[in-house]
Amino acid sequence: MPKETAIPAPAAAQPLIVEADFFHQNLPSGVELAVDRLPERNTVALAFRMLSGAADDPMELGGLAAIVERTLSKGTKRHDGRGLADAFDAIGAAWSTTTGRQSTVMRVLCLPEFVPQALELSAEMLTQPTFPDDACRVAVELAQQELKNLEDSPDSLVRVLSQKLTYGDLFGRYVGGEAETLARITPDKVRDHWKRMFTAGRLQISIAGAVDAEAVAALVDRLFNGLGRREPAGRQPADFEFRPARSHRHKDLEQEYIAITLPGASRSDPDFAVEQVALGVLSGGMSGRLFTEVREKLGLVYWVGAWHEQPRGRGIINLGASTTPERSHKTYQTLMRELRRLSEDLTEAEVARARDQHIAHKETEDDLTRARAGNLSDDLFHFSRPIQPQVELDAIRAVDAARVEAYVRKLPRDRVCVATLGKREL
Amino acid sequence: MPKETAIPAPAAAQPLIVEADFFHQNLPSGVELAVDRLPERNTVALAFRMLSGAADDPMELGGLAAIVERTLSKGTKRHDGRGLADAFDAIGAAWSTTTGRQSTVMRVLCLPEFVPQALELSAEMLTQPTFPDDACRVAVELAQQELKNLEDSPDSLVRVLSQKLTYGDLFGRYVGGEAETLARITPDKVRDHWKRMFTAGRLQISIAGAVDAEAVAALVDRLFNGLGRREPAGRQPADFEFRPARSHRHKDLEQEYIAITLPGASRSDPDFAVEQVALGVLSGGMSGRLFTEVREKLGLVYWVGAWHEQPRGRGIINLGASTTPERSHKTYQTLMRELRRLSEDLTEAEVARARDQHIAHKETEDDLTRARAGNLSDDLFHFSRPIQPQVELDAIRAVDAARVEAYVRKLPRDRVCVATLGKREL
Repeated sequence: MPKETAIPAPAAAQPLIVEADFFHQNLPSGVELAVDRLPERNTVALAFRMLSGAADDPMELGGLAAIVERTLSKGTKRHDGRGLADAFDAIGAAWSTTTGRQSTVMRVLCLPEFVPQALELSAEMLTQPTFPDDACRVAVELAQQELKNLEDSPDSLVRVLSQKLTYGDLFGRYVGGEAETLARITPDKVRDHWKRMFTAGRLQISIAGAVDAEAVAALVDRLFNGLGRREPAGRQPADFEFRPARSHRHKDLEQEYIAITLPGASRSDPDFAVEQVALGVLSGGMSGRLFTEVREKLGLVYWVGAWHEQPRGRGIINLGASTTPERSHKTYQTLMRELRRLSEDLTEAEVARARDQHIAHKETEDDLTRARAGNLSDDLFHFSRPIQPQVELDAIRAVDAARVEAYVRKLPRDRVCVATLGKREL
Repeated sequence: MPKETAIPAPAAAQPLIVEADFFHQNLPSGVELAVDRLPERNTVALAFRMLSGAADDPMELGGLAAIVERTLSKGTKRHDGRGLADAFDAIGAAWSTTTGRQSTVMRVLCLPEFVPQALELSAEMLTQPTFPDDACRVAVELAQQELKNLEDSPDSLVRVLSQKLTYGDLFGRYVGGEAETLARITPDKVRDHWKRMFTAGRLQISIAGAVDAEAVAALVDRLFNGLGRREPAGRQPADFEFRPARSHRHKDLEQEYIAITLPGASRSDPDFAVEQVALGVLSGGMSGRLFTEVREKLGLVYWVGAWHEQPRGRGIINLGASTTPERSHKTYQTLMRELRRLSEDLTEAEVARARDQHIAHKETEDDLTRARAGNLSDDLFHFSRPIQPQVELDAIRAVDAARVEAYVRKLPRDRVCVATLGKREL
């Protein structure tokens, strides 16, 4: 507790987060478009989210969605791979793509005056890829190498093991595939998968920045018109059954890596904000309990954290740590104790700090145009509409210690998944 | 090359980067203060750089500077560790600290109205730490665990090996220390080291945001007055001799990790901008030669990159890759070939792309208040004064293919350091 309280608390009014000026339409082409109009910003951030990801890979072709994503840029009907990269470079646009379980996302950042060109190039990449044979072969080879890199990266590997355990054999597959499934991926399979999965009805485009939303909508509608089926698709809830389980993978490592998961709140659950605050108390910044109590007071773990993730319509809470093999059992017990303790001895001061921290983080993040586009894209993914930033903040402000305690008491803390990696089983 | 060129090149004038409104003073207390006045920004970023780092650790106490940095926040004359964290949280200020070879940096991000409190709390942490015995003991224990984590992280470990080889036994020591040197660190050694190294004459403070520079200067001068010696110190050039060498560390890994270094340009070298463009051609974004030629065409490496780092007054160029053990020799040869090829078949188009990319990156980064504070802090570190962003951009714009080729021809490409980690020696 502070010994002095001369420092004033933040003002109750939060002038920084003003009401957002959203545009949101389902266009005739089938594309869902949302714009967060930010006339004063110097950069524009665009997120193209195709509602198809690794969970849609055929069982025998795990890794296919990621190969599609990585070869999209290797050639189109108008440009070869180098030409496409050069064209983005010529307008100073930075771009990247990623594959998730339920979506494949392309992000672009550019200056406002180049938005039309950035849209045209992105559309070219998403709607007219040619998937050259050589590029597909190289992408598969690199994916095989990535699996070897994963074996050398225990921080990442334990998460992959944990996600398999948590989400099951289908939904929980590693996005990057497996050696055997990658070996089956041919250029034709890549083209077929793109054709089946990249449709206007699965495409959500989110843009933040100084743009004319109506003009952008007209251009988007023209550029993506005719991309496969226009009927909305890919919007069903995540399909997996959570079953408590344990797994240990032996590996001759210096540290032991522990990952615990249990079901939590979905993004649309009224308790989602409560879970956010609870995790803030556990793991928010320097003052989180896991950091102050477990790491800094006990020196028990090298790394420790708690976070959550939300497949569509679902939620999973994660606790993780890395420690010495000798301390792994004690670390596991301590993590579970700290989770339970949230329902026992929580103070209003801790809850207030977690709330304030979350709000401050949101306000600082709000400074980043790309974060605005990312949040908007997440809104479409989870809620099928933009959500005012103020709504999330109001939900956070309404959380008190009693609600957190009640929420944590309800959590199925005796039915968790535990994945460990290292020299010693738990 | 693009098959179509309908897309206009960026305008020659760069309206986004305007002349910065800098404040820069050596205050009576001995502190060097610089402010980048950004009246329209919603956040303020502060960087406190103490010109003392791991290179100043006594030889038998490697890791001491990092232990000082990690225990600064564990208690002051006014607050215990928890109270200090709470006080930062109460004003929604995010902060972090890091230890480098030549400096220890504390970064703070807060809202403009809380700058006085953020300065007071930061000053309290830097000028009145008590280094409680328990906190020192835990920090040493965590540093020991970090060494074990490093052993499990080959990406990081190969860099540590490369830096030892490049910078030598004193300057190139791992910032986190070694098991034997950490074991010798006692609370008294921590306090002594802080007392010797944390002085007003070594402190550079850089602030970016909507602040009143004169008022901040008065407050800073009062808060840091009397912190040890006020005479300027810690501003000498980096002290190491580069000697070509090879080292291999055997470890049973799936991949082979390769790190190559050679001397490059210092920040004040007129050729620094030339080196930036050269590295952009090699490794800038998606269109860099290492990415397109080595990774994407050949599928030779999982990861590949080129970058540079600048100790004060010096420069080191880095090339790195991870690949399969079987391909490690070919990968090494390919990296060296690609470096040489920069002096042989460079096109003006490639150079223009690297220039444009660098400028676009700079403009996008400029959107981030914390990047402005970081750049300002780097300016003080390297040049002892703020540098207009335009100066760096003008230097980049003046680079052409002939200058890059001439620069790369001069590089001592036959006198490099090579560190490898994995199953097989090169």
